[in-house]
Amino acid sequence: RTLRIGLIPGDGIGKEVIPAGRRILEALPASLGLKFEFIDLKAGWETFEQTGAALPDETVSILKSDCDGALFGAVSSPTKAVKGYSSPIVALRKKLDLYANVRPVKTVVSAPKPIDMVIVRENTEDLYVKEEKTFDTPEGKVAEAIKRISQRASSRIATIAGEIALRRQKIRAGGAPSIHKGPLVTVTHKSNVLSQTDGLFRSTAREALADPKFKDVAVEEQIVDSMVYKLFRQPEAYDVIVAPNLYGDILSDGAAALVGSLGLVPSANVGEGFAIGEPCHGSAPDIQGQGIANPIATLRSAALMLEFLNEEAAAAKIYAAVDANLEEGKLLCPDLGGKAKTEEVVQDILRRL
Amino acid sequence: RTLRIGLIPGDGIGKEVIPAGRRILEALPASLGLKFEFIDLKAGWETFEQTGAALPDETVSILKSDCDGALFGAVSSPTKAVKGYSSPIVALRKKLDLYANVRPVKTVVSAPKPIDMVIVRENTEDLYVKEEKTFDTPEGKVAEAIKRISQRASSRIATIAGEIALRRQKIRAGGAPSIHKGPLVTVTHKSNVLSQTDGLFRSTAREALADPKFKDVAVEEQIVDSMVYKLFRQPEAYDVIVAPNLYGDILSDGAAALVGSLGLVPSANVGEGFAIGEPCHGSAPDIQGQGIANPIATLRSAALMLEFLNEEAAAAKIYAAVDANLEEGKLLCPDLGGKAKTEEVVQDILRRL
Ligand SMILES: CC(C)[C@H](C(=O)O)[C@@H](O)C(=O)O
Ligand SMILES: CC(C)[C@H](C(=O)O)[C@@H](O)C(=O)O
Repeated sequence: RTLRIGLIPGDGIGKEVIPAGRRILEALPASLGLKFEFIDLKAGWETFEQTGAALPDETVSILKSDCDGALFGAVSSPTKAVKGYSSPIVALRKKLDLYANVRPVKTVVSAPKPIDMVIVRENTEDLYVKEEKTFDTPEGKVAEAIKRISQRASSRIATIAGEIALRRQKIRAGGAPSIHKGPLVTVTHKSNVLSQTDGLFRSTAREALADPKFKDVAVEEQIVDSMVYKLFRQPEAYDVIVAPNLYGDILSDGAAALVGSLGLVPSANVGEGFAIGEPCHGSAPDIQGQGIANPIATLRSAALMLEFLNEEAAAAKIYAAVDANLEEGKLLCPDLGGKAKTEEVVQDILRRL
Repeated sequence: RTLRIGLIPGDGIGKEVIPAGRRILEALPASLGLKFEFIDLKAGWETFEQTGAALPDETVSILKSDCDGALFGAVSSPTKAVKGYSSPIVALRKKLDLYANVRPVKTVVSAPKPIDMVIVRENTEDLYVKEEKTFDTPEGKVAEAIKRISQRASSRIATIAGEIALRRQKIRAGGAPSIHKGPLVTVTHKSNVLSQTDGLFRSTAREALADPKFKDVAVEEQIVDSMVYKLFRQPEAYDVIVAPNLYGDILSDGAAALVGSLGLVPSANVGEGFAIGEPCHGSAPDIQGQGIANPIATLRSAALMLEFLNEEAAAAKIYAAVDANLEEGKLLCPDLGGKAKTEEVVQDILRRL
């Protein structure tokens, strides 16, 4: 099978880590029967400055018509609102209907306090619909934004969360070491304040997870503020956390802090038969150009993309190579307290593939 | 001076901790020249079940006309949306225009990794305006909520954040041990997605903090997801964090996790010349009636209320007695890993007053 993969490095360290993602895909053993074709695509702040569009139409149309998946690096945001600019990744998620943002957060198995969770973030609505307006009042300006929650989006995100919980359980049953007894989905919301919007998310998620196919999945709820508290007090207790868009954004950064660095945490933006791998970190202007960005978030994002393109064996190879590097703990980038360059870490992981 | 204080225990452990708050106020040394009168007031789920109103009009009118301040315990939320019920503390904050929710989070000075920050949360708007609607579409139900951010509320919350930063600096200058060099306010928002609403919060806060009276206060910004990440990676770096309502809710629970228990973290809901002290924890139905709720969040909330009623000397007495109990670390409630009952901790702290 040949997979056509769009490469969208974006800005800053995005340009340093996306090439690493390409290299690991190219280095996968031939025995897997996978071939790759890569298509370079543009998006981001530099693209905006050059072309007037942060997400050129061409990028969207090539992804739609020519690609099976993609890797997205990171983009820089302007420090002030700039007319015509808005986040290309947020736009991409909507335009390609990549309704789930999947963010696994785990330590190596030998960690003193191992954790192993995945945050499944709704990716198309909530405050990210970006419907805002501003008006003048006698007391000054007032701005309003719409938070939109739909039964449809809530149902499909809860369903994929349940499926991911079952898949994780299957992998464990296959002998993978695990800290979890059985599959658990934690539904996060703030329905004690937002009884209609988050109330709809909550009841819809509950309903979706009550489907007989999820009969082995335990389901519980956490109010988002309490969820952040518990995430830090007992992270080992969580398996799959499903949340509306904004809470998912916040929770996944919080969870990343638990494993030492955002530079380790991958994500996949998942739609029907399409996935974009995206490291959770940003464009990190403070370290760009120094060759020290941690490539692991991107390598794991490439694996996660493969998982959702049904290439689980290939994904497992990449995960194992990355884990071996981390377990050994000798070649680490500065975000993990080491001194290794991006290139050294990439080579070490390629060697272990 | 006689202070008239409303007591609103609410539900669950609220009824166990609010009496402790009363006792510490009554036990303050006569030399401070403070007298207290207490007025018992109703609110909460039990009140709703008895009277049909979670926040009886009488409670609001007595607070407005007869009280200088109040202590609020906690209320239980129904597990499903119940017609006519909505959170009484959210309503109180709005009805009394208690525009700032101030949440100091600190460890004892001798902690291995001391932290000392205060989260200043806007308390009247954002998604807490609770303007929601639900409609049917061919694809199922859709619900919308309004997130409202005003220049007026953003300006006053940033201003009080700046004032709190200066006040903290003054206390340090008086010789209190501190981990901070100078006052710092961190403005938290998500203006990279919400350019109008959070953009307005950000620019208004910046403007308010540019006032010459804050010339000694350093000001920086953090996007909310990154703020949660940093909160856990380098909590010692933060002094005053100012945020819109919902982010402030989430951040303050997150910060509470850093000091070991929500049972330690106080808050004050602050308006012009009025303050309600409120422990950050909830009604904790799982431990209610066992006499083991940690009273410290409430005792500190009583002190915080006094601070905002300009009784800083009295507040300092309470803080010192609580800190002495924690520094010794012998009598701790179960939330901190100890075996002490609420009553034992209260007596220990009263003794140290
Ligand atoms: C850059 C920003 C728009 C984005 C988001 O909020 O989704 C980022 O934080 C993320 O999590 O991918
Ligand atoms: C109980 C709930 C409505 C409340 C809030 O969200 O403000 C609580 O979480 C708090 O922080 O005081």
